[in-house]
Amino acid sequence: MPIKNSKIHTSVKIFKKNLVNIYGAKIGAKTKIGPFVEIQSNSEIGKNCKISSHSFICSGVKIEDNVFIGHNVTFINDRNPKSTNNKGELKKNDDWILEKTFIEEGVSIGSGSVIMCGIKIGRDATVGAGSLVLRSIPSKKIFFNKRNKNLK
Amino acid sequence: MPIKNSKIHTSVKIFKKNLVNIYGAKIGAKTKIGPFVEIQSNSEIGKNCKISSHSFICSGVKIEDNVFIGHNVTFINDRNPKSTNNKGELKKNDDWILEKTFIEEGVSIGSGSVIMCGIKIGRDATVGAGSLVLRSIPSKKIFFNKRNKNLK
Amino acid sequence: MPIKNSKIHTSVKIFKKNLVNIYGAKIGAKTKIGPFVEIQSNSEIGKNCKISSHSFICSGVKIEDNVFIGHNVTFINDRNPKSTNNKGELKKNDDWILEKTFIEEGVSIGSGSVIMCGIKIGRDATVGAGSLVLRSIPSKKIFFNKRNKNLK
Repeated sequence: MPIKNSKIHTSVKIFKKNLVNIYGAKIGAKTKIGPFVEIQSNSEIGKNCKISSHSFICSGVKIEDNVFIGHNVTFINDRNPKSTNNKGELKKNDDWILEKTFIEEGVSIGSGSVIMCGIKIGRDATVGAGSLVLRSIPSKKIFFNKRNKNLK
Repeated sequence: MPIKNSKIHTSVKIFKKNLVNIYGAKIGAKTKIGPFVEIQSNSEIGKNCKISSHSFICSGVKIEDNVFIGHNVTFINDRNPKSTNNKGELKKNDDWILEKTFIEEGVSIGSGSVIMCGIKIGRDATVGAGSLVLRSIPSKKIFFNKRNKNLK
Repeated sequence: MPIKNSKIHTSVKIFKKNLVNIYGAKIGAKTKIGPFVEIQSNSEIGKNCKISSHSFICSGVKIEDNVFIGHNVTFINDRNPKSTNNKGELKKNDDWILEKTFIEEGVSIGSGSVIMCGIKIGRDATVGAGSLVLRSIPSKKIFFNKRNKNLK
């Protein structure tokens, strides 16, 4: 079973338990988790959330209650990822800096978005589908990238 | 087996039956389905289509014959998704409005694209890889977002 | 087991062997492969690489040593994909042209990026998260799309 070492409330619904990879995570009551989702250790998801299929919640992401994460949403925790360190060896745990990300209560993140680390998305903010979010977003703001306007 | 309640023509090829999530869908003859694909109920896919790996076909999407859906393509059916309703409870079926999407015969949608709901992509149109499509596209048109030009 | 006909060095770590689809590929020593990854035939991955979850490495992609591929990165090998040929039949192997892609040593490709085929990303170059890469990138260059600047 690809669900390990996690504190998952008994009311959480994981629709396809054999098609997720969840380890070391904390997930609150009534939250729903779609298929093809990975949730890493030291991440935290509140109650009444929806984590849609194909999304990736990495270590260091804290998601509060009532948050919608669309399909195919990708979080990040390393601003300068590399495979190897300066010695040419595979990076170890102390070869990189984890930057945390905070998603406050009631946020909605549209499908296909990529969320850079080290930022906060404020309460009830909305991120349009297909966005790349590089900076913090204030509460209640509706965020779009320029391409969301389909300018050509 | 994560394939349920679907009308799938016997000639359909699903390359990895244990690595898809398909329920309540209708899929026409000779269509090919890659791994890590989710196809939801009340969606319809024609014959001779190719649905590539990591793509997500949601309820309300109708795909006609001879359509190419690239890898990691995400459809949407809720323009304003939220996890909870105004009472702070998890949304139920009548708490949101499904908007349908129509993909006409012969369309090609490039990998990594996100397709907003409530639109039609016309016959033989092409959507470039990595596009965000927010409006209907006329038949035979070749669509790109601005970023596809790599302006900097 | 969804791993077939591949030359995988014994030191390669595939974290969830039941949640990948790998066939006909060559993977070098100590490389790590995340869940929900597809690696197709006639692709090649060097040693000390990291291929993160949800990524797609297609036929014709050659990745050298010490390369970081983020989460949800999509490669492409067909510039003009269609489901059917001019006769309206499903395309066969000689109905399309595979264009190769070369990722040189030490490259880092950020999560959520889409990489067009027929290009080379030069040694130690960096591709920012959420990029669409349509042209070759010189060695050591740091590449971003315009939207990465969050202009609005």
